[in-house]
Amino acid sequence: MTTQQLIQQIQKKKSFLCIGLDVDLAKIPQHLLKSDDPIFAFNKAIIDATHHLAVAYKPNMAFYEAYGVKGWQSLEKTIGYLNEYHPEIFTIADAKRGDIGNTSAMYAKAFLQDLNFDSITVAPYMGKDSVEPFLAVEGKHTILLALTSNMGAFDFQTQKCCENTLYEHVLETSKTWRNAQNLMYVVGATKADYFVGIRKIVPDSFLLVPGVGAQGGNLQEVCKYGLNDNIGLLINASRAIIYASNGLDFAEKAKAEALKLQQEMQAILDTL
Amino acid sequence: MTTQQLIQQIQKKKSFLCIGLDVDLAKIPQHLLKSDDPIFAFNKAIIDATHHLAVAYKPNMAFYEAYGVKGWQSLEKTIGYLNEYHPEIFTIADAKRGDIGNTSAMYAKAFLQDLNFDSITVAPYMGKDSVEPFLAVEGKHTILLALTSNMGAFDFQTQKCCENTLYEHVLETSKTWRNAQNLMYVVGATKADYFVGIRKIVPDSFLLVPGVGAQGGNLQEVCKYGLNDNIGLLINASRAIIYASNGLDFAEKAKAEALKLQQEMQAILDTL
Repeated sequence: MTTQQLIQQIQKKKSFLCIGLDVDLAKIPQHLLKSDDPIFAFNKAIIDATHHLAVAYKPNMAFYEAYGVKGWQSLEKTIGYLNEYHPEIFTIADAKRGDIGNTSAMYAKAFLQDLNFDSITVAPYMGKDSVEPFLAVEGKHTILLALTSNMGAFDFQTQKCCENTLYEHVLETSKTWRNAQNLMYVVGATKADYFVGIRKIVPDSFLLVPGVGAQGGNLQEVCKYGLNDNIGLLINASRAIIYASNGLDFAEKAKAEALKLQQEMQAILDTL
Repeated sequence: MTTQQLIQQIQKKKSFLCIGLDVDLAKIPQHLLKSDDPIFAFNKAIIDATHHLAVAYKPNMAFYEAYGVKGWQSLEKTIGYLNEYHPEIFTIADAKRGDIGNTSAMYAKAFLQDLNFDSITVAPYMGKDSVEPFLAVEGKHTILLALTSNMGAFDFQTQKCCENTLYEHVLETSKTWRNAQNLMYVVGATKADYFVGIRKIVPDSFLLVPGVGAQGGNLQEVCKYGLNDNIGLLINASRAIIYASNGLDFAEKAKAEALKLQQEMQAILDTL
């Protein structure tokens, strides 16, 4: 999917909501555990109830790998379902991978080609040659960790590095990499104060923003400083939406939570 | 496995060799492609031929995920085989994971508990709370990326950060984390000059050292500056051993390459 197609979808749905599909069998409605593939059954119900309100879905790989072969099968079915029935949706493999070149190329094959996700999250620690194999895949997007939503972001990312902080140095440096036009960045919603500075470095890039909801980030604050002329934000909510209820009404409750966020986004978009 | 058991194994085998099981179906002997599970067939043959010469095996997750569900099945069989028939071997899930706390906990479950690897490689970019869920698993080891073997290591890792460089800051900081006694570090063999400084910060820690062989690192140089009183090194070779031949003799040729490295290691150990 091109960035332009993503922007068109945002304008049509009046939403820049991404829903995180982080499925923990201990948290989903117990009646689903009887189905052949509870993870996929859960995801399908969530997608069916919310796809008109969200522009992106982001399964986090950890939650699938935690169930081994079965988890990987659920992942294949989930991305297969999205690609077949909702091709307009932007899909994100939240994998936070990054390794030496020949290894990153294998991850790029797995997620961007075989599973056919539109994008993958990647960790920058190993530098340019660990990220470029992802950037090399045509028509796909690489979402680089910049400033994450957790407390640990202050351990290294916000430390002084060269003339800036590490996350700023990651932003500046990555702009020079091959196919950098395919880069997006992860910036946590819990760090709203930092968006002004980030927009000075990457004014045009899409930012994937986790941390609204369960982690405490504020949507209004993020939008105030993070929006650009092309919207440029994907706001992710995971637990606040998918675990809104663990009863028979889980999909309806998820839809209601997604609708709240979509309406808040629509109000913001209407003022632009 | 305890660190003490690992050291005993090194002393018994007179080897601190780790063999990377990075299986690419395009590179393995073609006759194996007829078997039900070519990746496992290849790994089993390599393990059978080399387990008396190596103290650790390190499957890199990318090479299994690149084959989807089948790859994950091959991974399960490989680690299952090692745990059942060679329980003395130290096993490393080369995964380079790292995410917010509840997500890292899922990766820790997948690799250290369900698959029952002795250790996992982890990326430090997201800081303390992204690493501690791995450290929390009792009897297991977390191998944190410090200074990697690739060119991209110079993009961020060797940049000035606080009073040191970033990788030194990672070493210093991580020593203060909960259960830090379970930490080991990745330091590339291609950066032999840096081992003196690294040993000043982490004199007692085991270092996992990739980059000997295909990537050009020098074993003698690494040992000169990296060995400590408890050996403290695991030297990894992947392609140089496992792809020594792609004919019917691949396991024999792998054994011959592993033997060369083991003999070089034995000569070094004998001088201590």
